[in-house]
Amino acid sequence: MWRKQNTKIYLLSMKEITANDVANFVKNGDRVAFGGFTPAGSPKVSALAIAKKAEEEHASGRPFRIHVLTGASTGDPIDGVLARADAIISRVPYQSNSDLRNLINEDRVQYCDIHVSHYAQQVKQGMFGEIDLAIIEVADISDSGEIVFTTAIGVSPTFFRHAKKIVIEVNEYHSPKIRGLHDIYETELAPHTKPIPLVTVRDRIGTETIRIDPAKIVGIVRTNMPDQVSAFSSSDEDTDRIGENVAKFLSNEILSGRILPQLPIQSGVGNTANSILKAMSAETSIPPYTMYSEVLQDSVIEAIKSGNISFASGAALTVTRECLDEIYGNYDFFKTRLILRPQEISNHPEIILRLGIISINTALEADICGNVNSTHVFGSNVVNGIGGAADFARNSQISIFSCKSTAKDGKISAIVPFCSHMDHSEHSVKVLVTECGVADLRGKGPRQRAHEIINNCAHPNYRDLLNQYLSIASRGHLPFSLSNVFKMHETFTAEGDMRKTVWGS
Amino acid sequence: MWRKQNTKIYLLSMKEITANDVANFVKNGDRVAFGGFTPAGSPKVSALAIAKKAEEEHASGRPFRIHVLTGASTGDPIDGVLARADAIISRVPYQSNSDLRNLINEDRVQYCDIHVSHYAQQVKQGMFGEIDLAIIEVADISDSGEIVFTTAIGVSPTFFRHAKKIVIEVNEYHSPKIRGLHDIYETELAPHTKPIPLVTVRDRIGTETIRIDPAKIVGIVRTNMPDQVSAFSSSDEDTDRIGENVAKFLSNEILSGRILPQLPIQSGVGNTANSILKAMSAETSIPPYTMYSEVLQDSVIEAIKSGNISFASGAALTVTRECLDEIYGNYDFFKTRLILRPQEISNHPEIILRLGIISINTALEADICGNVNSTHVFGSNVVNGIGGAADFARNSQISIFSCKSTAKDGKISAIVPFCSHMDHSEHSVKVLVTECGVADLRGKGPRQRAHEIINNCAHPNYRDLLNQYLSIASRGHLPFSLSNVFKMHETFTAEGDMRKTVWGS
Repeated sequence: MWRKQNTKIYLLSMKEITANDVANFVKNGDRVAFGGFTPAGSPKVSALAIAKKAEEEHASGRPFRIHVLTGASTGDPIDGVLARADAIISRVPYQSNSDLRNLINEDRVQYCDIHVSHYAQQVKQGMFGEIDLAIIEVADISDSGEIVFTTAIGVSPTFFRHAKKIVIEVNEYHSPKIRGLHDIYETELAPHTKPIPLVTVRDRIGTETIRIDPAKIVGIVRTNMPDQVSAFSSSDEDTDRIGENVAKFLSNEILSGRILPQLPIQSGVGNTANSILKAMSAETSIPPYTMYSEVLQDSVIEAIKSGNISFASGAALTVTRECLDEIYGNYDFFKTRLILRPQEISNHPEIILRLGIISINTALEADICGNVNSTHVFGSNVVNGIGGAADFARNSQISIFSCKSTAKDGKISAIVPFCSHMDHSEHSVKVLVTECGVADLRGKGPRQRAHEIINNCAHPNYRDLLNQYLSIASRGHLPFSLSNVFKMHETFTAEGDMRKTVWGS
Repeated sequence: MWRKQNTKIYLLSMKEITANDVANFVKNGDRVAFGGFTPAGSPKVSALAIAKKAEEEHASGRPFRIHVLTGASTGDPIDGVLARADAIISRVPYQSNSDLRNLINEDRVQYCDIHVSHYAQQVKQGMFGEIDLAIIEVADISDSGEIVFTTAIGVSPTFFRHAKKIVIEVNEYHSPKIRGLHDIYETELAPHTKPIPLVTVRDRIGTETIRIDPAKIVGIVRTNMPDQVSAFSSSDEDTDRIGENVAKFLSNEILSGRILPQLPIQSGVGNTANSILKAMSAETSIPPYTMYSEVLQDSVIEAIKSGNISFASGAALTVTRECLDEIYGNYDFFKTRLILRPQEISNHPEIILRLGIISINTALEADICGNVNSTHVFGSNVVNGIGGAADFARNSQISIFSCKSTAKDGKISAIVPFCSHMDHSEHSVKVLVTECGVADLRGKGPRQRAHEIINNCAHPNYRDLLNQYLSIASRGHLPFSLSNVFKMHETFTAEGDMRKTVWGS
């Protein structure tokens, strides 16, 4: 509620429509693209109307399902309502909604999870077919047709260019001050690609706004609501210990001169990430640092307020309503410390490599060679998807992964002989951290890595078991015993506790 | 034998030494770096003397082993002789020598294989410790101290900067004409990294030669011999069929407008790569193309001669003596069609992404989800290492992997439920090709991918078996049955034939 209803001339020249009108534009089998990145900047009302239409069509015995493209995850107002209405044929590039996840894991929705950095190029190449309709949230459209995004740009510039029709949700919750928060730069497809001129975290290389073909806009829907971002889950003793271990590692690197204190940090999302930022703030030998990251959460805003983060660049401002209100309330302070970029720039390998980023991401499971699974439980059921973690992990100067050493009250070890799915190979994992300690894998061969991981990161209850495996798998460059490699997973499946594992010969 | 002994002033001012003198510089436990990339540009005589010293020391009961850093693989005159003398403690970043491989797989040499693109930065960061001695082959040193490389630059500019002492092998086999073949550009560590200004395959962005600190040079060794490159292994019916399938796929992409004909090709090494280049030359709808690759083999030179390749950029000219002599004999033709770059530039993600490269690499094993193993046999024994394949696969516009559908007379299927090692995840593998056909995985979900791979790429003898596995692994986002996932590998180990696999429940 930052302003009265927008009465700008350009907007008034557009056809104002309802969410139900949007649903009427959508046909069974269409490819529909939603703007935003995470709940930040996602359209708020159109998907609900499409889901309602799907239910009505299904009730009348007619098929109605669509292909859904987004920037990343969205939240319940898109993925949740469409999933519950059984309105989704396929979904790219990332999701984190429980109802949608269930359909994916029941093979009722075709889900192709994609590196965030690859996605815009693949859309431009037409890998997902023609986009029939793009529904994009914006904060404002100026009289001269300049579009101001809200809390994320996502891949929307690409959707604007490649969609046949566009619906714009003008979200009047946002302050007009938000203009200037965005730096919009689009890469061209080869052979027209040029070096991206960004050389520091703070650089502006693009435009504040974007212009689109007005002929494509089939209607404007007015909304007035904040992003549906829930407060971050709270930290616990283990995440705090992980945070301290990461902060201590970084502090040692800085003190030893191996990394420069100003090198930017990328951090994943969730309570472990929050604990890490908290611990970094508490570590006196870590001076104020910058972030070049993907999702900026409340904890990043907190660290900016406290002066621990001097500047943050991200793909999305995924913050609670209270946090957003605080940003708008102190906008003169925050506007010089925040920038939002398209996801192809926030996650671009060229930039991540150039800036020498220290990446910190979360593992679901790690193996004794240093491979990391961040997506699939016991090899099969997806949690969220690959997202942007691999963009940062592969291209960062130091790639750190963290996880709790056990799950399910100690019955599952997060450190296993071999990951049941692999998202980040040993080559992309330089440091592994659990609440137990830090394994520094840089420059080490596989068996040295295995010792580091077992002795520093595995839970003490699992160290003997893993060392026994290492003895069994004593031959070869990598420790790998074909008949034992998933024995811990099998034991959990059969007996409910990995600690009961008995190795075969 | 392209010239008389070099009598340039600068060279004459240096201390001329023998290979035995070089060995005397090397102490037990030293870190020794060898220049070149593959046998191309590798020093020819120093390692033999070091190996001899190791044997003498061992015979006298004294320990003598060193850490060996190279650009990539080297060949017998370095890796072979040092391995047989048991003179290697650790080895980075890539090897392909059978004697060394055996030691690695017996865990007698610590081997850390590294993405080629990451390696120079890691050396600069000191990840492998201080380099005591760098031994670098050059073709020439001008009177003003400009160093001309031979058939590869490798990571030698970085070794020159970071080694405490330098020995130079001046290889007088090479024609003075070779000056100008090289384009030397080094990236700085963050935060000093700048955009790499290369925007086309042909661009020159660096210098022809390099100057080094003469105070570091402890001696010059004169040699006169070509690189020890054996003629490529010959193609067979299956590799020819793979080549035709790749060429046909590319031709369809060009005809459909999905890729532009001028987009550069990267191709791996070996007989399959040769068959692919041959088939591409035969495909009339593929116009002359450029290469932006790593290793340039005889087959690339053949295709340049025939006009099918208009320009080739690489890290190494890994060609037979006959082929090199032909290049020198027709140098006016070749000098406008070839360029050699440091390996950090030939394999740089920034450049691979920008140029929109089509990458073609070889798989050892691929699974029905589209993951690829290119390094480890049955999860354990390394063949060569990760090399540069992942740099290209992850960052290319279209990443193609190829392999024969079976090995060991059909007793091993290259297409399995789950790779026993993973180098390239489903996200980096866009097209899989065997002699049976092509699986186009772009934009598809896991189960669609599985059907494509089984029905188009698996050998007909294995299709029923793999489809049965798919039925068993029917739950979840990814087809994964914990108790069956390595059943084909286990059956081969126990019964010598994967076709005898019987799935469990």
